[in-house]
Amino acid sequence: MKIITRISQMQRWALKHRSQGIGFVPTMGALHDGHLSLVRACRKENRFCVASIFVNPSQFGPGEDLKNYPRTFSADKALLLKEKVDILFYPGAREMYPDGFQTEVRVKELAHGLCGACRPVHFTGVAAVVAKLFNIVQPSRAYFGAKDYQQAVVIKRMAQDLNFPIGIRVLDTVREKDGLAMSSRNKYLSRPERMKAPLIYLSMLYAQELLRDGIKDARKLKEAVGEFLRPFVAKIDYIELVCPENLRPVATIGRVSLLAIACYIGKTRLIDNITLTLPAGRQAFFPLPRRGREVRGDGEGT
Amino acid sequence: MKIITRISQMQRWALKHRSQGIGFVPTMGALHDGHLSLVRACRKENRFCVASIFVNPSQFGPGEDLKNYPRTFSADKALLLKEKVDILFYPGAREMYPDGFQTEVRVKELAHGLCGACRPVHFTGVAAVVAKLFNIVQPSRAYFGAKDYQQAVVIKRMAQDLNFPIGIRVLDTVREKDGLAMSSRNKYLSRPERMKAPLIYLSMLYAQELLRDGIKDARKLKEAVGEFLRPFVAKIDYIELVCPENLRPVATIGRVSLLAIACYIGKTRLIDNITLTLPAGRQAFFPLPRRGREVRGDGEGT
Repeated sequence: MKIITRISQMQRWALKHRSQGIGFVPTMGALHDGHLSLVRACRKENRFCVASIFVNPSQFGPGEDLKNYPRTFSADKALLLKEKVDILFYPGAREMYPDGFQTEVRVKELAHGLCGACRPVHFTGVAAVVAKLFNIVQPSRAYFGAKDYQQAVVIKRMAQDLNFPIGIRVLDTVREKDGLAMSSRNKYLSRPERMKAPLIYLSMLYAQELLRDGIKDARKLKEAVGEFLRPFVAKIDYIELVCPENLRPVATIGRVSLLAIACYIGKTRLIDNITLTLPAGRQAFFPLPRRGREVRGDGEGT
Repeated sequence: MKIITRISQMQRWALKHRSQGIGFVPTMGALHDGHLSLVRACRKENRFCVASIFVNPSQFGPGEDLKNYPRTFSADKALLLKEKVDILFYPGAREMYPDGFQTEVRVKELAHGLCGACRPVHFTGVAAVVAKLFNIVQPSRAYFGAKDYQQAVVIKRMAQDLNFPIGIRVLDTVREKDGLAMSSRNKYLSRPERMKAPLIYLSMLYAQELLRDGIKDARKLKEAVGEFLRPFVAKIDYIELVCPENLRPVATIGRVSLLAIACYIGKTRLIDNITLTLPAGRQAFFPLPRRGREVRGDGEGT
């Protein structure tokens, strides 16, 4: 595995090898099995596999956790080496945002609700850095996790709108055994907080059960989830039921709806989501705990 | 020459041929010798030459001339054929902006002044469509005219900020014999208006002469140009002296400054610019009328 820190060097390599097919997994480091499931799919589906580690300052708002965001480069490097990644792109912030940088990429409607409402600059930062990374790494496929569902939808839209010739692959959320969605920010949790954190997922399974019992009214479901969660969390940013395509709130659960939550366990902001499927009959219902095992490439050794 | 109207087909061709080197001239059609000088340079410097014709709705503001913008497709096609262009990309507006399109590309500081002040949505529309075209056509070099100086600077910045692996070539303004900068919008001029239009260029040569006589104060120069022009034009949008790199207004002429003008001859808005060079001595001064003949590729048969 080659580690490249310069944009010019990364792009030179990419322009030379792109015709053979480059797969790309952009990350902010602090890698966990969620990232590794992306890397494995990428490794399997492309001639070359490039991963990047860049804690992108422009997607953090003032007062957010840019400074404290977990940085575990040596461990990350070892993990990516083991997964036979070809290139690790690891640029510095000055390399990515030199003096005079002033171009904004903004996906409008899709970035307004959910996390966009609480984190107004977040998705603008994400869209621009991903556009940059796409041009630098020249992949034909790029891999994102469904845990950051809105991010994946925003990036898909950006890639489609700007005609990047890149397939955007969104892979299922990988969960801990107790259901907690894997996230680099889980490292912030104290042991007691870590015990409470799986309740986010449980509250969503609870909603799925209520739906199974016939409650299709979005307001009622959100209230129920809120009541379930409130005793355990410090603050709820949102509990939303939206259309998984356009992210607009739904009043009644349709065939497939997305239940998305952002809340604070202690001082740590965590997000999670599941798709609620309306069972045509009971037999169409798959118990949700299986989702964690449905991740592509997961069979290769988690 | 092959004419392609579908994005998918254009991109398929581009992905197949880009490794050999694609040069690209994006236009809005109504081609004149200014465009053709770009095409000739493109033809000379690249294995393949792609030109596009697309009157981009998103760079016209409400009340601007989108509807009346000159469309001369048959003549354009004949000209490009004669210049041995390989591909003419000619998409429709629905192809470029399908339902759900919502991504904005915005170059901030550079797009604020000059034409950006009078046409607030213009450069956002330009930046997005050029980013799209870059991804669709996959060029290694793209060609723009210096007549639209601010546009060229904005695109250069966008390409650099988003790390497009594309060389942006900006070629000198091509002028009519009487000095009028070639522009598709010159077609709007009545014969009497056409007689007045070269005064825009003359007023800039006048400023160069005043500078030569030692007047370096930007305010004085702008006033003098304004007095020169005012009897002939219906309205002046701006007369500005700026730094050619960051487009910020200058108070005193530095080594190289840009004099830029936007004004209306009748109902037609025309823009033009020249670089004013501060002569170290008189011998450093090149008489400006020669600029029109310094265009690259111009020797090949204008």
